[in-house]
This record gives sequence, C-alpha cells and structure tokens, in this order.
Amino acid sequence: MTVNYHTPVAENLLPVTGVRLGTACAGIRKPGRRDLALIELVAGSRVAGVFTTNRYCAAPVLVAREHLLRGPIRAMVINTGIANAGTGEAGMAAARQTCEAVAATLGIAAEQVLPFSTGVIMEPLPVQTIVAALPGCRANLAGDNWFAAAHAIMTTDTVAKAASRQFSLGGKKIVVTGMAKGAGMIKPNMATMLGFVATDAAISQALLERLVKDAADASFNCITVDGDTSTNDSFLLVASGAAGNAEIVDPAGGDYRSLCEAVLAVARELAQAIVRDGEGATKFIAITVGGGVSTGECKAVGYAIAHSPLVKTAFFASDPNLGRILAAIGNAGIADLDVDRVRLWLGSAGSEVLVAENGGRTAGYREEDGARIMAQAEITVRVDLGRGASQAQVWTCDLSYDYVKINADYRS
Amino acid sequence: MTVNYHTPVAENLLPVTGVRLGTACAGIRKPGRRDLALIELVAGSRVAGVFTTNRYCAAPVLVAREHLLRGPIRAMVINTGIANAGTGEAGMAAARQTCEAVAATLGIAAEQVLPFSTGVIMEPLPVQTIVAALPGCRANLAGDNWFAAAHAIMTTDTVAKAASRQFSLGGKKIVVTGMAKGAGMIKPNMATMLGFVATDAAISQALLERLVKDAADASFNCITVDGDTSTNDSFLLVASGAAGNAEIVDPAGGDYRSLCEAVLAVARELAQAIVRDGEGATKFIAITVGGGVSTGECKAVGYAIAHSPLVKTAFFASDPNLGRILAAIGNAGIADLDVDRVRLWLGSAGSEVLVAENGGRTAGYREEDGARIMAQAEITVRVDLGRGASQAQVWTCDLSYDYVKINADYRS
Repeated sequence: MTVNYHTPVAENLLPVTGVRLGTACAGIRKPGRRDLALIELVAGSRVAGVFTTNRYCAAPVLVAREHLLRGPIRAMVINTGIANAGTGEAGMAAARQTCEAVAATLGIAAEQVLPFSTGVIMEPLPVQTIVAALPGCRANLAGDNWFAAAHAIMTTDTVAKAASRQFSLGGKKIVVTGMAKGAGMIKPNMATMLGFVATDAAISQALLERLVKDAADASFNCITVDGDTSTNDSFLLVASGAAGNAEIVDPAGGDYRSLCEAVLAVARELAQAIVRDGEGATKFIAITVGGGVSTGECKAVGYAIAHSPLVKTAFFASDPNLGRILAAIGNAGIADLDVDRVRLWLGSAGSEVLVAENGGRTAGYREEDGARIMAQAEITVRVDLGRGASQAQVWTCDLSYDYVKINADYRS
Repeated sequence: MTVNYHTPVAENLLPVTGVRLGTACAGIRKPGRRDLALIELVAGSRVAGVFTTNRYCAAPVLVAREHLLRGPIRAMVINTGIANAGTGEAGMAAARQTCEAVAATLGIAAEQVLPFSTGVIMEPLPVQTIVAALPGCRANLAGDNWFAAAHAIMTTDTVAKAASRQFSLGGKKIVVTGMAKGAGMIKPNMATMLGFVATDAAISQALLERLVKDAADASFNCITVDGDTSTNDSFLLVASGAAGNAEIVDPAGGDYRSLCEAVLAVARELAQAIVRDGEGATKFIAITVGGGVSTGECKAVGYAIAHSPLVKTAFFASDPNLGRILAAIGNAGIADLDVDRVRLWLGSAGSEVLVAENGGRTAGYREEDGARIMAQAEITVRVDLGRGASQAQVWTCDLSYDYVKINADYRS
C-alpha cells in the first residue's frame, strides 16, 4: 500500500537522448523477476553522484566513487537482492568483476562502469549469476525502458518510482527523467535508496557536481522512514549533452535555474515517493521547522519528530496524542531551547490549527480539530522555534504493524 | 508479557527504616486503580536526584529540582495517568498545589515535598482529584508498602518493578529497596521512567549526590526501548540515616563501596526490568561495545544498534540478518571508523560466535549458529571497535507488533 502514489504509466516517462536502459531476470535471490538493470550512456556524457555516509559503505559504492574520479563514465549496472555491503575484500573483488563483465559486454573500459547493489547485507554477491544475465540486458537496451528499469531495482518497494519533466532552453527541448528505489532503511544523508536521474542537457562538470548535491539536499536528504542510513545509498545525476543546447556554465544564469527546477522536481517526486511507499506507511507527514538559528537545528527537530516511534504510532492510530510531538521537540538536543517560545501547528489540505504555545497546549485548541486532521492521509506538522530565521523540511511516514511485519519477514 | 522478569513477592521487598509509603485510588484517568503514591521520609533524611534532559521538562520535575535545592525533603508524591508536561504555567501551578496539599496532609512545608507525574503529555493535571485522595494515602502509610506503591506508579508497565538488597556495615544491617516504572518512551539520560531507591544508611549529602549520578549512569542511563527520552524522567535516591551506622563520608572507603554495590544492584535490576517489560518486548538484548577511544563513542555505537528498527525487528523475527547490525555500527557517526578493524560477536547463555571481522562476515561463521542464538530470549551483542580501550553497555529489547499496538492504542 502507498500513500497517494502510483507508478507513472510507461508512456509518461520520457526517454533521455543518449541514455539507454536494459533489464534482465538474473535470478539473484528469486527466480523469474527482473533484478538486473544496465544503463548505457552515450560518449561525452557527464556523471556526478553523492553517496552514503555509513562507514560500512558497500563495495560497489567504493568502486563507484573510485571510477567517478577517473571517468568518463559510459555505463551503470544495478542489481537488487544482494547489497554487497559488509563483504570485505571479496565484495570489492565482486564489484570489480561486475564492472569488467559490463565493460566486456559493451566494449568499454571497466573504469567507465559504475556498479550499484541493493538488498541483503553481509551476503556474498553472486557475480556469475549477474555476468550471465548481462547479454540479456544488452539485448533490450532502449531509451524508453525507464519503466522496466524502475521495476528491476525494487527491493521491498511495492511500486516502481519514476518521474519525468521537460522544458525548453534556447529552442531545444530538454528532458529530465529519473527513477529511484527505497522503502525502508531510509534516513537522511542518503537512504537505502538508489536514485538515478538523467537529462539530455549539456552542462559543465562543475555545475553538475553542484546540482547533484543541491538536489540531494532538497529531496533525498529530507526523507526518513525508520532512521536507518543504509550502506548503499547513491544518487547519480547524468547529463548526456545530446539535447544540443549551449552548455550550461553559469550558476547564476536562467538556463541553470531552469535545469535546477526540473531536476529538483523529479528528485523531490522520487524522494516523496519513497516515503509514500515507506514500509507499512499509511500516512504521509510533511514536517516544516522554522524560526531556528541554523538549518541544522531545524533539521534536528524535524528528525526528532520524524524518528520518534511514539509520534509515528500516534499518526498510525490517528490519535491526536500531540504531547508526544512536544516531547520529541524537547528531545532534539537543543540545550538552550526555550519552550515558551515554541509554537506547534498541525494541518492537512491547506488548513492548520495551532496546537501548542507558551510551553503547553494553546487555549483555543480543540481535541476534535486534532482528531479530524490526524484522520487524514496527508498531514503537515509545522514548528516555529521562535529563535531565528532558519528553516528545514523533513518528510516521513507513520509506523504501523506492517513495518514490523515487512522487516521481520524480509529474508524469509 | 515480559522477558524473564516477574514482580518480586511483597515479602521480599524489605522495609527501609524511616520510609513509609501509602497509596490510593484517585481515579485520575481510570476509576478503581491505585494511581497515587505518597512516600513519607523521617526527619533527617537526605535526598538526591537526577532528571530528564528533555527541554519540554515536566512541571513536577521543575518543581522537584527547585525543592531539592531548598530541602530538607520529607515527602514525595507520585501520580500516574497524567504527566503534567507540556502544560505551561498552569502545569507549574498544579504541581505547586499538589505539594501544598501534601504538606497540609502531613504537617510539613510545601518546599519539603517532591512531586512526580507520569502519563499523557499536554493534558491538564486534575489537582482536585489528587488532593481528594491524599488522606487515603496517609491513612495506609506503612514501611512494608513498596509492593503496593510499585503498582501505583505503573502506566503501560505490565508488571510492577521493585527490588531489595541488604548487607552489614559495622554490625548494623543496611537495607536498600527501590521501585521503578517505565516500559516505553525509554532512552538514555533517563527514560520515561521514575525510579525511587531508598536506604536506611547514613551518608553525607555530597556522597549521596555522587552515588545517585553514578548509579544512574550504570543503570537507567544504559537502557533504551524506543529512543524517546521522556519529559518526566526522574531517579531519586533517599538515605534516611535510620540504620544507625557511622555516617559514610569517605568515597574511597569500604563502607561507601558496599553501599554503592547494593544501590547499583537494585538500580540495575530495576533498569533491566524496564527493558524486560519494554512495550511489546519478546527479547532482552545486552550490547557491549569495547575498543573505543571514548565511552561516548562506544555508547553511540551501542545506541545505534539498539535504536535501529531494522535490527530490532530482526531480533523479533529471530532472523540472523546480522548485516543490519553492521549497517547500524557504520551509522553511529564515527567518521573515521575503520571497519576492517571492527569485530562483531553474537551470543547467548555464556557462549558466543564471531560473526564479522575484516569488513565483512568471518569465514567460520555458520548461519545455523546465528539462527540458534537469535531464537533465544536473552541475547548478547559484542562489538570491538579495535581503536582504543573504552567500553560501554546498552540494554534493549526487540520491536514487535505489540509495540505498535500498545502505542497506537495507549490513550483509547
């Protein structure tokens, strides 16, 4: 079940000139499902990425970082089922072998391949199984395969996640299309989440690097399902340059702003889709924290609310037990927070009610207003810390029986 | 359901000379249950306490801190049902009125009373209901009422928690008896947890202050159920001095060590009882992290493991999906952790197996060993960070369907 998210129909996912995708059933953990995706990039493409901060960083992430420094990248390969994390030296060798096999399949060099894995941690990657399926991926490489590829990278996801935008730059049509996977082990600084967004726009490498970071901060780094940061998180941004626009080089220019908007729109839609498909999610909660002295402390408060199992279960129960939100705010680690200046609003569908001020519940708050809002599937929580001008956003979901069920049953 | 914990029988809870307890059915949230406890201390008693770090600190905690500075304390009053937190100025007035009523009931001053509350946050405290029940508490004040008092302070606890120890000091029998409540909203730096431990030993105020901090750090500050630090956490240590021993004044002496041991034993038993009665708990997990450069980083790793919903659900499922523990270690915020030096063991009933080393699963590890251990109700997780000599302990429980059920249903 998802909260107001449906996989887009295949025809609405626009091909990105210069980018072809192929998939295959490798049988990595389960027979008969497409679990391997190959992305081929036209010569001249530029790639930038951001990766997990988890110290048990997966082998493919280490190899991808290394290859990105060498470039130019011509292919990406993504398997689901096995994360190839917590696998030591053998895992590194497996990631390299995968790159070599992709290189041989496409006639490029191994350093031009970025490998990605998602699935169970600490199990060995079945390299031969993957290698054997690569010709199948190559055989169906096509520009209009985003829909199939988005399915091939799923793990506990219940829906495939993909999005497209288009706009014009100097008379040239620019496309941005992306896909992502993730439903649990989702937390800031990259979730168990793989995200791939491609555009046919031409843009300098320096601006592409900046764009991938800014887009991640305003999308994937705003989400949390369960507070677990995965070993494999990766978000890649590809610019094939095939659209024929004048290369974007000015960070202050309108062209960059237009591309930013489109990339951000796709990244946000994908990031929110991950939360909407959060394991066991029945509610989508958008938390805005303002009035802080820094973005960091606003984010800390947002995450304290979003990570509190008591707050999350109250959302699941549609129970306006909103004192739990106050307790979470008080628990965010701001040592000198003056709770008498904190205000808390709860809202839905554009209307909101003031819940707390002056250190406690506001006089005008009525339980039935809280109950009415908590019954909705889309809820906003707004906090004003009353001590500065910074703000931050966090998107999360509730904690339900099904979260426990999904994660207790995941390997079986 | 609890994991290997049963309320001690009433006769095993030793009276502490100079300390009398009384309870009553005030009907604060539910009729017919004992929800109010009064503790009367003999003149000359010394009291020390540690309290929540939550910024939405409850009104009774603020009042208790204030009264502790004035002393001497002669009574403590504890209500369950309403936390009197997130209640602003009205909450402060309610806590003070409660103290005044207790003072009038016992013929002491209001500043000699410490108030404590636990229950729903942001709801007003029904002061008149509490005041009306105080004569009932006074009427049954008795030294052997620990069993009844331990029941009267419960919220979502399924069992009452209390423990006693005794030993001799210079021919005098010394008793230490304590009680605690807590099952959810449990995290370090005091859980939603109230703990009261009393001894009849005579000890200087300075050493009592030291002892309460040391005991909290080695007991209640080692536990977590759900990572939520409550607004009301309080741990109080009372020394009535009625045992007739020579006042303990030397922190290096054997008398202090003997008292420490007994207080720590009671505090640890109570702290572990909270985890064993953790909301929905089916497993008790003792995590030891050694080889760190500081206790702080060891505790951070311990809590990263203990707070990971993915690790907790794997314990619930008895699934040796131990890569999730590696991911949690990598997620603990130690930026320069070298995972090639980290070792992980899983154990039960005194035997343990090495699971991971050199960045991944150890060669000799067999899935059936992991499965056998994960099926036990008492499990140990041991991590060696391989970078120093510090260590820390964390005790926690698993995350089950019932945690969600209990917290989704709590107010209804």
